[in-house]
Amino acid sequence: MQQTKSRYPTVTYLSAPEMIRLVRRLGVPACIAGVAERIEREFLRWNEFDKSARVACHSNVGTIELMPVADAEQYAFKYVNGHPANWRLGLPTVMAFGVLADVHTGAPRLLSELTLTTAIRTAAMSGVAARALARRNSRRMALIGNGAQSEFQALAFRDLVGVRELHLFDIDRAASDKLAANLCGQGMEVHIFDSTADAVRGVDIVTTVTADKANATILTPEMIEPGMHVNAVGGDCPGKTELARAVVEAATVFVEFEPQSRIEGEIQQMPADFEVTEFWRVLAGVVAGRSSEMEVTLFDSVGFALEDFAALGFMRDQAMALGIGERIELLPEADDPKDLYGLVGASVAA
Amino acid sequence: MQQTKSRYPTVTYLSAPEMIRLVRRLGVPACIAGVAERIEREFLRWNEFDKSARVACHSNVGTIELMPVADAEQYAFKYVNGHPANWRLGLPTVMAFGVLADVHTGAPRLLSELTLTTAIRTAAMSGVAARALARRNSRRMALIGNGAQSEFQALAFRDLVGVRELHLFDIDRAASDKLAANLCGQGMEVHIFDSTADAVRGVDIVTTVTADKANATILTPEMIEPGMHVNAVGGDCPGKTELARAVVEAATVFVEFEPQSRIEGEIQQMPADFEVTEFWRVLAGVVAGRSSEMEVTLFDSVGFALEDFAALGFMRDQAMALGIGERIELLPEADDPKDLYGLVGASVAA
Repeated sequence: MQQTKSRYPTVTYLSAPEMIRLVRRLGVPACIAGVAERIEREFLRWNEFDKSARVACHSNVGTIELMPVADAEQYAFKYVNGHPANWRLGLPTVMAFGVLADVHTGAPRLLSELTLTTAIRTAAMSGVAARALARRNSRRMALIGNGAQSEFQALAFRDLVGVRELHLFDIDRAASDKLAANLCGQGMEVHIFDSTADAVRGVDIVTTVTADKANATILTPEMIEPGMHVNAVGGDCPGKTELARAVVEAATVFVEFEPQSRIEGEIQQMPADFEVTEFWRVLAGVVAGRSSEMEVTLFDSVGFALEDFAALGFMRDQAMALGIGERIELLPEADDPKDLYGLVGASVAA
Repeated sequence: MQQTKSRYPTVTYLSAPEMIRLVRRLGVPACIAGVAERIEREFLRWNEFDKSARVACHSNVGTIELMPVADAEQYAFKYVNGHPANWRLGLPTVMAFGVLADVHTGAPRLLSELTLTTAIRTAAMSGVAARALARRNSRRMALIGNGAQSEFQALAFRDLVGVRELHLFDIDRAASDKLAANLCGQGMEVHIFDSTADAVRGVDIVTTVTADKANATILTPEMIEPGMHVNAVGGDCPGKTELARAVVEAATVFVEFEPQSRIEGEIQQMPADFEVTEFWRVLAGVVAGRSSEMEVTLFDSVGFALEDFAALGFMRDQAMALGIGERIELLPEADDPKDLYGLVGASVAA
């Protein structure tokens, strides 16, 4: 029964500063490409995963969610919030961290920041979906909502889809200016518009990544042109949508994990039998994606745990290869695992 | 929009070594008493909490669970596994950590080990329940299962209930020897028995805290004497029970959070309409606990998130008061929360 301490699994910790170091070292485009590749790989083995809709705790100002998923070997979960008014306090709207653990022992193996990583994986997921669903030769994209996630979306669409021209709009003009400045010299033509309607006119793809926790109508039917691909990222919890109901109704809708999307996605506005296709089926070639150049496709993205599973795996492997990350003592190490009390009992007599 | 970094909330980290330091400093009995007091306080405001059954991921060797709960101010969750064969690998059956976060911003504020703390809070919960449900003047307890949690159970029943004599049994005799040795000089008479039947004969309280993930029958009807209180701790996930169905049937059953207990508790063996009482109602005086000296009461404990909420709050306050704990950089700190990209974008040009 006696065991040596060395048999305890190491918990690796990727702090925010270490993750920033890792992403700077690799470059954002390489991270997006690497995570996109992992997302495709994991989505192609969809049925090997134990999946569930995330568990959300709602307040009137925001949401806190836990997002678990597992295959036969690894368990992952993410903690993530969504608080649209946080920027007024100098805080991000979205903050996140996550864990990878061994299914066979239940031991956590990696604790990682996921605030930055969530922006990367969300963009990678959007790009992977658009690559399969948007018209070939899509070059112009409107980007509605120019906050913390927008640069990552722009780069993902540049590299995964071939977008070369961006039309920006945000109710906060300073956010658009920041985005335009950050994209300077990145090989994309960038224009800032004064309204969503002006920004979306004539584009191939519309990405909405707004934060307001409300049933907003960022996109209305008259803005939608035949053949557009709509990448709706911001509507991602009950009571938080971005599209007018008629926009959803007129589109061919693809989702990540249907049980979760029914609660959280744009399709929360629709009847329970409104037809949607889980995107993994397109990737796997089980169903077709877009059927014509005139069809309007909608990727109703809410963010699914499997994307974080993919991102955690990529970041862990890269960090290991580059010697980035620390060891963290999250678990007590007893010589005898049945003698937890032995770690603390000595004080009782004292 | 520009904000100073100082407005970012600090995330405090209680590592396993720091928690061990804290518990040794306070002493295990003081921790049990403090957590018990918090559990009572939180259970008395039961209806102020956003409660849900925990989210479990099952494999054939164990379970990994996430346990969230929140009131209007604070959100807590625990990650915890249950892998009965882990001791063969030199690992604990149960490993855990958890987080306290602000409901208003979603920002995590405390990351803490909870392996040790889970043993303390489970014992405190058992003691709080038995204090309300067992016969007054209960002095003798059988403790079936003498693993990592058993010392904590023994001390909780000594201090909260007044138990002075312990009857031990475990299929692993070395575990009983370890428990007896750890309890030496703690003011309790300790006897080791060769079977559960021998250990439970004539006691006032039976605590079962075994680990096997199976529908085991640690207690069978002929072992149960009139007036006993049964504290069933080990049966805590689907397919993991400790009591024969007839034992449950003949007892007055109290549970923590009924929707979770129906899935995980001893009552998973019973029909959906089998009558149980949520324990908080007894504490609050809404319903009576024990109705006679002859009644058999059963606390069908599975472990509920609110107990971790209570324990995290207690440990955080004690750690703060004693200057224990570190700061952890789990969240990236940007001058402009809408400019996450600014933290990593510089490398792209390079």
